[in-house]
Amino acid sequence: MAATESRVGPVARAVLQQCLHARLQVKPAEPGSEAEWVEIQRGLIIYVCFFKGASEEIIPQMVNTLMHVKLSETEGGKYVSVLDLPGNILIIPQATLGGKLKGRRMQYHSNIEKEMGLDLYSQFVIQCEQELAANTKCAEVGTVLRHGTYGNRQVLKVDTNGPFTHMIEF
Amino acid sequence: MAATESRVGPVARAVLQQCLHARLQVKPAEPGSEAEWVEIQRGLIIYVCFFKGASEEIIPQMVNTLMHVKLSETEGGKYVSVLDLPGNILIIPQATLGGKLKGRRMQYHSNIEKEMGLDLYSQFVIQCEQELAANTKCAEVGTVLRHGTYGNRQVLKVDTNGPFTHMIEF
Repeated sequence: MAATESRVGPVARAVLQQCLHARLQVKPAEPGSEAEWVEIQRGLIIYVCFFKGASEEIIPQMVNTLMHVKLSETEGGKYVSVLDLPGNILIIPQATLGGKLKGRRMQYHSNIEKEMGLDLYSQFVIQCEQELAANTKCAEVGTVLRHGTYGNRQVLKVDTNGPFTHMIEF
Repeated sequence: MAATESRVGPVARAVLQQCLHARLQVKPAEPGSEAEWVEIQRGLIIYVCFFKGASEEIIPQMVNTLMHVKLSETEGGKYVSVLDLPGNILIIPQATLGGKLKGRRMQYHSNIEKEMGLDLYSQFVIQCEQELAANTKCAEVGTVLRHGTYGNRQVLKVDTNGPFTHMIEF
């Protein structure tokens, strides 16, 4: 363990679900303008939350892990990474994932401050986009990355062939 | 800590998502018979997984916590339990939640053996049903509890107004 290591818990938490199709609101309806949505076809949904103590240093490791972990099922029943599938990616900021049970309520004291959280979330999205863009298989097929708006209500519709839910902490 | 306490980690993990509507396959299609589905309207989806070391003793605490934790949003924007909403409940067995990252793969060595897992899952469902049946508010409105088939692929469609994803370990 490095001398500078002082972490007592995870600095980020991701929940992963596989989807056949997902649709996420990125801008709510307002007087005079309809709600805006993004959508992906088959691929991976990444719900992500950062805790106090997280910094930009963690992002490359998160991106590397999440883009390469072999959780996506091929037609032949083999498990490969979302990049190798190749599949689409939907990233959803989900601060509620940082909640800790206290009595009958959840508390979010471990969550990172909002501004820093937005910064880390943006970096995470950018680096995932770069990873996707650098992958020839994904570029050939034209897979896409879409993401939610930090701080918004994440109005979401998901269609799965089995969400195959996983949790990974960093 | 009790002298008998020898737990080194959680014995169960639940992921909670709010939904407006959810539809889950409980029997896949076979030659001569169509797939069977259950569905719920507004309420709570509970994905659940048991680890080695879990026993029936943990079930009442899990049921009590999950039925009473205040994560369901009322029309007025207040957070109440799913029983107080009153909302419907969909329980989904999700062994993948027990996965631990090892290199670029997930390993499931901490997961409980299949037979014991089925027994705990069944107990969990039954005790949630009892809690729902004992609640006058739910009985009046006629809220329902539906659940997936242990060991099956959990083919799922979800429509949310924000999944508001939480993770609770026991």
